[in-house]
Formats: sequence, structure tokens, C-alpha cells
Amino acid sequence: MTANYRIRKKKQTDFAVRTDLALEERESFPGNGGEIGGVSLREWNEERSQVKFTEVKILDERGAKAMGKPQGIYLTLEADQLAKKDEDYHREVSVQLANQIRRLIGNLIEEKENTWQLEGRKILVVGLGNPSVTPDALGPKAVNQLQMTRHLEQQYGRGFCRGKGLPVLSGIVPGVMAQTGMETAEILKGIIGETAPDLLIAIDALAARSIRRLGTTIQLTDTGIHPGSGVGNHRHSLTKDSLGIPVLAIGVPTVVGAAAIVHDTVNTMVETLASSMSTKGMGDFVQEMSSDEQYALIRELLEPEFGSLYVTPPDIDERIGQLSFTISEGIHQAFFESKPCQ
Amino acid sequence: MTANYRIRKKKQTDFAVRTDLALEERESFPGNGGEIGGVSLREWNEERSQVKFTEVKILDERGAKAMGKPQGIYLTLEADQLAKKDEDYHREVSVQLANQIRRLIGNLIEEKENTWQLEGRKILVVGLGNPSVTPDALGPKAVNQLQMTRHLEQQYGRGFCRGKGLPVLSGIVPGVMAQTGMETAEILKGIIGETAPDLLIAIDALAARSIRRLGTTIQLTDTGIHPGSGVGNHRHSLTKDSLGIPVLAIGVPTVVGAAAIVHDTVNTMVETLASSMSTKGMGDFVQEMSSDEQYALIRELLEPEFGSLYVTPPDIDERIGQLSFTISEGIHQAFFESKPCQ
Amino acid sequence: MTANYRIRKKKQTDFAVRTDLALEERESFPGNGGEIGGVSLREWNEERSQVKFTEVKILDERGAKAMGKPQGIYLTLEADQLAKKDEDYHREVSVQLANQIRRLIGNLIEEKENTWQLEGRKILVVGLGNPSVTPDALGPKAVNQLQMTRHLEQQYGRGFCRGKGLPVLSGIVPGVMAQTGMETAEILKGIIGETAPDLLIAIDALAARSIRRLGTTIQLTDTGIHPGSGVGNHRHSLTKDSLGIPVLAIGVPTVVGAAAIVHDTVNTMVETLASSMSTKGMGDFVQEMSSDEQYALIRELLEPEFGSLYVTPPDIDERIGQLSFTISEGIHQAFFESKPCQ
Amino acid sequence: MTANYRIRKKKQTDFAVRTDLALEERESFPGNGGEIGGVSLREWNEERSQVKFTEVKILDERGAKAMGKPQGIYLTLEADQLAKKDEDYHREVSVQLANQIRRLIGNLIEEKENTWQLEGRKILVVGLGNPSVTPDALGPKAVNQLQMTRHLEQQYGRGFCRGKGLPVLSGIVPGVMAQTGMETAEILKGIIGETAPDLLIAIDALAARSIRRLGTTIQLTDTGIHPGSGVGNHRHSLTKDSLGIPVLAIGVPTVVGAAAIVHDTVNTMVETLASSMSTKGMGDFVQEMSSDEQYALIRELLEPEFGSLYVTPPDIDERIGQLSFTISEGIHQAFFESKPCQ
Repeated sequence: MTANYRIRKKKQTDFAVRTDLALEERESFPGNGGEIGGVSLREWNEERSQVKFTEVKILDERGAKAMGKPQGIYLTLEADQLAKKDEDYHREVSVQLANQIRRLIGNLIEEKENTWQLEGRKILVVGLGNPSVTPDALGPKAVNQLQMTRHLEQQYGRGFCRGKGLPVLSGIVPGVMAQTGMETAEILKGIIGETAPDLLIAIDALAARSIRRLGTTIQLTDTGIHPGSGVGNHRHSLTKDSLGIPVLAIGVPTVVGAAAIVHDTVNTMVETLASSMSTKGMGDFVQEMSSDEQYALIRELLEPEFGSLYVTPPDIDERIGQLSFTISEGIHQAFFESKPCQ
Repeated sequence: MTANYRIRKKKQTDFAVRTDLALEERESFPGNGGEIGGVSLREWNEERSQVKFTEVKILDERGAKAMGKPQGIYLTLEADQLAKKDEDYHREVSVQLANQIRRLIGNLIEEKENTWQLEGRKILVVGLGNPSVTPDALGPKAVNQLQMTRHLEQQYGRGFCRGKGLPVLSGIVPGVMAQTGMETAEILKGIIGETAPDLLIAIDALAARSIRRLGTTIQLTDTGIHPGSGVGNHRHSLTKDSLGIPVLAIGVPTVVGAAAIVHDTVNTMVETLASSMSTKGMGDFVQEMSSDEQYALIRELLEPEFGSLYVTPPDIDERIGQLSFTISEGIHQAFFESKPCQ
Repeated sequence: MTANYRIRKKKQTDFAVRTDLALEERESFPGNGGEIGGVSLREWNEERSQVKFTEVKILDERGAKAMGKPQGIYLTLEADQLAKKDEDYHREVSVQLANQIRRLIGNLIEEKENTWQLEGRKILVVGLGNPSVTPDALGPKAVNQLQMTRHLEQQYGRGFCRGKGLPVLSGIVPGVMAQTGMETAEILKGIIGETAPDLLIAIDALAARSIRRLGTTIQLTDTGIHPGSGVGNHRHSLTKDSLGIPVLAIGVPTVVGAAAIVHDTVNTMVETLASSMSTKGMGDFVQEMSSDEQYALIRELLEPEFGSLYVTPPDIDERIGQLSFTISEGIHQAFFESKPCQ
Repeated sequence: MTANYRIRKKKQTDFAVRTDLALEERESFPGNGGEIGGVSLREWNEERSQVKFTEVKILDERGAKAMGKPQGIYLTLEADQLAKKDEDYHREVSVQLANQIRRLIGNLIEEKENTWQLEGRKILVVGLGNPSVTPDALGPKAVNQLQMTRHLEQQYGRGFCRGKGLPVLSGIVPGVMAQTGMETAEILKGIIGETAPDLLIAIDALAARSIRRLGTTIQLTDTGIHPGSGVGNHRHSLTKDSLGIPVLAIGVPTVVGAAAIVHDTVNTMVETLASSMSTKGMGDFVQEMSSDEQYALIRELLEPEFGSLYVTPPDIDERIGQLSFTISEGIHQAFFESKPCQ
């Protein structure tokens, strides 16, 4: 049993070293290749776009407890090239993304995965996060690039969109609580009550554990958004339970928590000491510390401010630009049989 | 009876030459100084800030019909200096604005005008318009500068704001229909249903008749927002009737409709021809044309595209900057007994 | 001789009704189809993209005087579809644009039109206009989307770009005089002196006469930018004479001057009166007014403020978005043999 | 001799744990209160604004070597309240800032500190950093809020500004190298060559060591900007030597390098281990490791990507908003005898 494992368990207490990616949560288990009860794992590659897909399914309560995330499907698309400015490549990935969006929505609305069944569906897309903080602006940017159609239905009569092979698309960028004085959940509940969409798609910037995943991974999940997730740390959940309609969440990690960096450093330090002959005793010593002693040690190292600090790369504006485009394109291709209205 | 009058009457038909200012509507009547049945007029000046106040009250149905606007109070603050970049001056005007906001809200919520009665009141502020079109961004900019407090109530317990002498302030920038696929009225109905504010303040960019009023006038009205008003031409009303809570609208003219420019040009041309000895016959001739003939003439001159085009000055970004500050400061001073939370 | 012509001539005086498009200047001549001394005209269509090309060449002093524009080539690409949000279409037009950019630059740098000859060329692109006023932000947005390469040359050594088949691309968004306190020409002279590019490409928002051309036309010219052109009304020229290097200007009309609207209205009114039997005498009367009388009439109708006011459509943000993309793509395809650096 | 000291010394090697604040560099010396050869320290408080001033003077080569910064004055204004949204407070600090700007410029241009001597002075202000990455946008935001005057001099004649008691102010926001393909130093050299200012003021976002200084400290220095400083890590210096005119740099720390966080964690961990009875031996052990061993240990912990990553708080947009205002107000008050031109 490594120090890594024991420290990880502390996450349930108050110095959360958070990842929003089920993929990373899964990786953090000791003996990464091994089985976790109640959690299934499937991996495949798409050759042309060189995208690696990983689907983590949390099957039951046991899996949910082990993973610290609710039951459901967590699908990630990974490609280093996503961080780069190659529009054709992003266009290609958006096709892959569209397929997966359709598949997950098919599950969510309990019908078979068929394009034509999405026509006439009423979909509300919400861009979560603070549009004026660069790494939090992914959702707002993606929604701003979507071609809305719901108002056409109101202008040209009910059934207009279905007739044209279009979805009934609406979208909102609510801003964050400090800007609105309201919970995002409250705003959405109100809008959903008034406009009665069949489905909510929530786009959000996520926190990862590994800096290598910043801007190179897209996660889709049918479980919605949960308290404490996202860059802005949502306080209320956005789920079928809380909102009354199914929620597909699309996220991209754009920050790593400062606490994760500190945490990883300590782990690496202990491992380094343990693996070197001269300092072996010392590393072993820490590893053999009791859980409480380890807790006390790390506690001391984590300044309280770290909880809200995040780490982000200097070219984050460009990465957000690429990925918000990829996501909005993916949504367009998932729902628009033909081109968006012209 | 002048040509001016006869052409003005056409406004009720389909080539509207629109102003959102009751002040300008009032001025457009022949014999400007005269009485209009059902409409009262009061003017005064504030010396220190050199602001001219005009209060147009539409008292009954007759007044509403004559003015083409619903019954209620329309108060304007005018000062050429508002177009200029003098922060101290804008701060001074914001004090005047705060007094008038309190007064109108006092009427709206049927209580006496008293600062302390506003404490603990739940107020939702909406910034109407398209944040990415400069002359339409007044409302969004003003709301972005407000200090929200409603979430503090949720964090620290009900009564927190009242205890601190604070209003319960929330705000939203919904965007325009092409961006959301939803009517602003739908979004607001939903949010109001969920968060139950006592009052809505709607901030909007307006269309004026006179280019001299661009960025130099602030209009307050207790009648809310009506279809066809604002730069973005709202299709649904935001009023006590439609939303269930009183609505105070604060607006600043930032555009003049292209149709207004054309219309004024024709009127001036006819008058010019009529007043010059050599062309007098011609001007008289047009003035004596039948209403239908005049209509046909002007109709021809107004290209259909003009309806949606607007005229705006090149320094509109700076004027919007000043005035959104003045309005957000005015709201702060109207509601915060002490400083906004620090 | 029509009133139209006589009024047009007044343009040389002080109430300029300006167009930045040579195409529109050419159209304004009486007997549009006829010949103008010193000016050649060539029109053709590109089938696939449905773009109409018009090349106005001002050949000599006589042509320059008649057209009120300097000698050189003015090429326009026109397509109504450019105002719409169809990325594939914009991509197609950007290929056409790239071809024409290469051709004009081939002339400018006195070499044959060959892609490979552009490799290793040092090109500075300037985005003229005020980034915070929507219709003036075309140039800034286009430059922000360009993939710069000049710094790679400095990082990886001289010859790096040529070796990779890349141009040496640099770019600047200087802002307008009220923001910088400097003439754009001064800033560019300084930067050109320090970085020694072979060519300047200036991207600018233009003023048109016809509202139908807003966002549907791209003009390329090898004559640079001249005082009084553009939305922001440049005071100093950006030309080979003033800057020492050839200048290719790329522009899109995004505004119509308010004065143009008024002017056109008066002309249409006179023509309307003249063409109707009942008012024929009146229209004829104005048409037969002496040039001075006409001048005095129109002078009276044009308020001095009109000079700086502009007319723009409410969806200008979207049109600017499309067209800045088309232009930056056109530049990429003109210069990057392969993809921009990845 | 503590581990802290020994690790700090490594900074001269290749895993720089950087601070742009001379204040923090000074603090990092062992026996903080002690004397450092060639470095003088002066501290005082301003009562009303509760600002703490610290002036670090690097007097000679010895001091420069010890501090890792060039000779000159480094003055910091510190106040926790600066992170808060209290406009009156920020206004008060801007008065303090103005006094210090005048004093440092007085030194720089070798004249006595007198307001009137600044009239007619030609000052260029540059806003360094990437305007589209929130924590790097301090300089661009501050420059955008300045009231430029240099163009008035060109419009109304040389001497206009002096006559009105105004400085001759110009400003530029050049963007970062990835956006322009040019070094900022090249752009500025060009502009300075063309417009001949007497002084450059460079406003920049800085990197601090301590997260407590983010947005609570303003540093003024008469030494200019040096390679590797700022959030964007300038590669070329902006100094009197490189540009030919004196340079006053104004900076605010808005990020902490991820490497600094890791570094501090390791130090704290070692100290924690050393101070606890049970683990004392282990901490001592690390402290007694040879410099090379320590180096190897920390080297292992610092991932190469950390060099470019930064840590920033989630409300950075608001802090940048406050402080860019404070700085632009400070500059206005330092130079404008009366109000900026209205």
C-alpha cells in the first residue's frame, strides 16, 4: 500500500484534491490496471482523428462510493493535438464528439440513437462559468457560437423546426453567483419552468489533476453537474433530480487546483526519498506514518487559500478558443440534420 | 396645420419614426408649449449638477392615445456634460439619479419615499440588449458593475442584508433573442418565479429622434418596457401585468433610427422650400398635398431596410462607458445605506 | 443632366457624401454603363462561390480626378451570402480572396504571381479601427485570428520560415488616435523602421453609399489607405510614399454615413416628384435649380453632426465575425504553402 | 543556516522560483531584519490610506548580485484593502501613487520633484501583457482608461498642452509576441523613434512569491523592465539603455508561479518534519543534505511544465479591474494639473 493511496483517501475530508475527470479518479487507484468493484472501464482509439476514448461506467453504489462520483457514464476524448491551432483537426474531432453526444443523449432520453429522432427536440444549452476569467470562459464562448433556433419556432409557428429538420435550440450564459447574486440552479430552474426544454446540455470548464490534460481532453457525462465541480465550484447540482429534465454535461479541464500541485509534490517527494538508497529510510518513515500523522503533515502544507487558487497555462486563451469551437461544432453536427439556418 | 403634424400622424401606420423618449414625443406636438389633454408636464433644474429635469405624466387613456405610450411617469435627466468624460460630474449626477430612483420606486411599491424602507427589499436588475454591439451594451455594462448581495443572504442566512442595511440585489444579462432563442420576457418570468424579487429594474439602450440626445439624457419610467422599444426592439412587454412585479425602466438614448433621419430631412426640405421666396410654391404644394399623397411620397423615400438600421456616433463606446457607470452608481446610492459590501 | 449628377459634383466641396468603394464611385457616374476617361472596368463571376468580381483600374490623372481616388487597382468581391453565417461558404470565398491577394501582391512587389515567391517574405498586417466599437472592429478581429510567424524566425534562426515554406508574418492592432494619442501612420512608420517588412497589409472597415453593400463586399486595392477613408477617418495616408513599402489594403463596408442617407433621400424625393404627373413641375424645378441653389438647399438639410454619424445594422457583430474570419483565412491561404505552424 | 537559505541560492541556477518584487527578494534573505551589503531598506506608513510603503534601494553591484535585480529604486505600496471593491479607497491610494510617481520621475529626469515641471513633458505609456488572458491584462486595461492628449498637440498646435497645464500623453497596447510576431521592445523602439517621448511608463502584471500579495501590492521602479519579468516573461529589456529614454515601471503581482508553490511546499515540509519531535531526524536530515543533493531532490519535484504555469485566484478579474483603475487614476493625478481634457 503506497502513500499515494492513503493520502488519496483523505480527499473525503476537508482538504480536497479535486479532479472533475472520472478518468483521473480511476487512474488514482493503486494498481491502475486492476478492477474496481462497481466500475467498468472501456478504452478504444479512433484512428483517423487519433482520439483516445475512455468510457468509465459507475454501475452501482459501491462504485460511486469508491470513485466519489455519482453513477453514470463518463466518456473522455483525449488527444494532445487538441491543444493546438489546427482548425481541420478540430473539425474532425467535432464529428467524433457529435457521434458521442448523440449516443449519450439517446440513452438519456431513452430512445435509440437516431439522428432524425432529435429533430424537433427542445434543447437548452447553458454555458457555465465566468465569461471574464479566461480559463472559466469555455462554456460561455461555446454557447455564444451556437446557432439558436427556438425563436424561429415562435416566429414561424410550432413545428417549423421539425419541418426543416432542425432541433429547437435555445441557450443561456447566466454568469457566476458573484455577478448575479443567484445560484445558477435557480436561474436554470426558472428558465426550464418557463420554456420546457426536453434536455439540458451544460458546458463547463473543469479542474484536472494532471497539467497534461489541460485543454487536451473533453469529458461527456450523463450525470449532470454536481456541487464542487467546475472551475467556479458550483454549489448546487444541475441534474435530472434537481431540474426535472435529463442533463448532458460537456467539460474540458482548463485548470489544476493549486492544492493538487502541492499534494502531488509531497507524494513525489516521499517516493523520491524512499527510492533513493541514501534517503530510503526517510521515505519509508513517512509512508509508515499513521493516517492521522500523514493527514496532519499535509494539512500543514496546504495553506487555506490554496482551495480557491488554480493553475493555468499562459496560452489558455487560445486553447479555450479552439475547444469552445470544437464543442459548439460538435453540438451543431449532433443536432442539425442539414446546416444551421441560413 | 404644418406638414410636420400631418406626417407625424402617420406614425400610427407602418412607417414608424420612433422615439423611446416621452419627452421627444411631447415635443413633437404642434405648438410645443400648449396643453395636451391627459398629459401633464413639469420641468425644473438642479443648479449644482446643471441637470434639467422633465417629468411627463400620462394621466389617462386620452393622454396615452395622444402620446402613443402607456399611462405613467416618464422622468428625464438631461445634461450635455453627460457625454463627456468627467468622473466627478458623473458621480454628482448619480446622486440626482439615486434620489429619483428612490422616489419612483416609492410610488411603485406604494410606500413613502424613505431610504430605510428599501433595506431588505429584493430587487432584480436586468441589463437588456446585446453586449457585443456597442450602442446596445448599456444595460449589460451597467449590470456588470453592480455589487450583488442576494447570495450573501443565502450564505449567511435570511435577514443578513437587512441587518447590514443592504438591499437584496440580484442581476442578469440575458442577451438578445438571436443569442438565446428565447424571449427576454420568458427568461425573466422564469427567474422571477424562482427567486421572487419585489421589484424589477430594467436598464436599456433607447432610440431617440434627435441626435443631440445621444448619450446626454437618462429616462426613468414606472411603466416598464414595451414591445418595439429599445435598440434591440423587444417583442414582449416587461411590465407589472406581464411579470407580476413592478418594473422601473432606466434608459439612455444611444441610437437614432435611420428612418427618423430620413423623415426629418423630408420635413426640413419641405419647410425650406416653403420659406424661401423662389421655392415657396413648391413647399406649399407639398404641405397642401393630401395626407394620402404625403404618405405615398414618404413611403417611397423610406427603404424597407431603414426600419432596422440605426445611426450612432463614433465615440459611442466612451459614452456607453460613462453612462453605464453613472447608472450603476445611481442604483448603488439609491439602495445601499452604507457602502456596498466590502 | 440629372440632379443626381449635379449634386454629386458637390462632393468635392465640404459636405462630402463619401464612399470608400471605387465600385460605388464608378456607379455614381451618369450613364453608369458608359466610359469614363482614364478608368477601366472589368467584371466577371466565379461560378462555384457565386462571387461577382469587379475590377476598377484608375489609369491616369484624369481618371483619378474623375473618381476622387488615387491611381491603382480596386478589386471588389461581392456576394449577398457573405452576410450570412455559413462557414463553408466563407471558407470557399477565402480561397477566391487568397488568389486575388496573391495576384495584387505579385503586381505590388513586381514579380510574377507565384506562391513560392511569397515564402520568406516579411509581411506586416495592421488591423485599423477601434476594437471596442463593433462596426470598426473588423481589422482588429482579423489580425487577432492570424497565425504570426516572425518571432519563430528570431527563435529558431533566420531562414527558419523560408525553410518551412512559411511567410514571415507579423501584425499589430494599434487602436485609434483617441486611444493612443498618436497617428496610426506614426506608429506604423516606427514599427516598419524597426522590423523592416517587405509589405504592409492594412485591414479596415469602410464606409459605403449603399446599405445593401454592408457586409457583402470585400475591396482589395494596391493604393493603400488615404486620409478620410475608413470608419475612423484616418488623417494620414498609409501608402508606399508615406511608409516606404508597398501597401495592400483590404476593406469591408460596415457603415453608411448618415449624410449619405440624407443625400440619397433628397435625390429620390426630387426624382419622385419629377416622375409623378401631379408633382412633375416641382421635381423639374429642383432639377433645374442652379448648382448653387441646390447646394444651398442640401446644405441646409445636412446637420453638421451628420459628418461623423454612421448607420449600421443591428446584426453587425455577426457580420464582422464572419468577414474577419474570411479575411484572415484568405491571408493564411495566400501565404502559407502548408498549414500555419502547429 | 536553514534549508530555506540553501534552496534559495539555487535560484541562480535553472529552476528559477521567481518573484518580480524586490520586497520579496529582500525578505527571502535569512535573518530578514539584517543588513545586506549594497541594499538599503526604508519603511513607512501612510495613516489615512493605511498604505505601507517599502523602498528597497539597490545601491551597487554587490547589492544587485545579492538581489538578482539591477541597481535602482524599488518602491512598494501595500494594503490588503486594495483587493477589495471600494472605489473611494482606491481613489485615495491613487493620490499616494501619484505622489510617488512624481517623485520617481523627478529622479529619473534629473529635476526636482515639482508638478509644474511635468507639464508639456512627452510621456508614452505602454500596457504590457496579453489583453485576453485575465491576470495578464492589467497593463492593457490601465492604458485603455488613460486620457491621451498628444494628438491635441498635433491638432491645436505645439504648446497647446503646456498652455493648458497638460502633459503630452500617448499610449500603446502592443499585445504579446504570439499575437504580433514581434518583440515588444522592437515595437516600442520604433514608436519612440518616431514620436520622441521624454519618458516611458511601462505597466505590467507581475509574478510574486506569496499568494497574499496578489492584487494587494503596487511596485514602482526606475529600473525598467528586464528579461524574464512579468507574467508574459519578456525576453528583451525595456530600459534607458535599450530604448534611449528613462523608463518607470509600475507593476502589480497577479500570479504566483506554480514552481514557487511547489518550492515553498517542500521547504515547509522539511521544516515541519524538523520541528516535530517524532520526525525531527528526518527534517534535519534533509537540511543537512549537501546543496547538490537538495538540488537533485527539488529538481525531481519540479515538472518542466511548471515553468510556464501560474497560480491565480478566481476573482482575478475584479482585482485587475480595481487596480487598473487605481493606476490610471494615479497617472492622471501625477500629470494633469487640472482635470483631463473635457
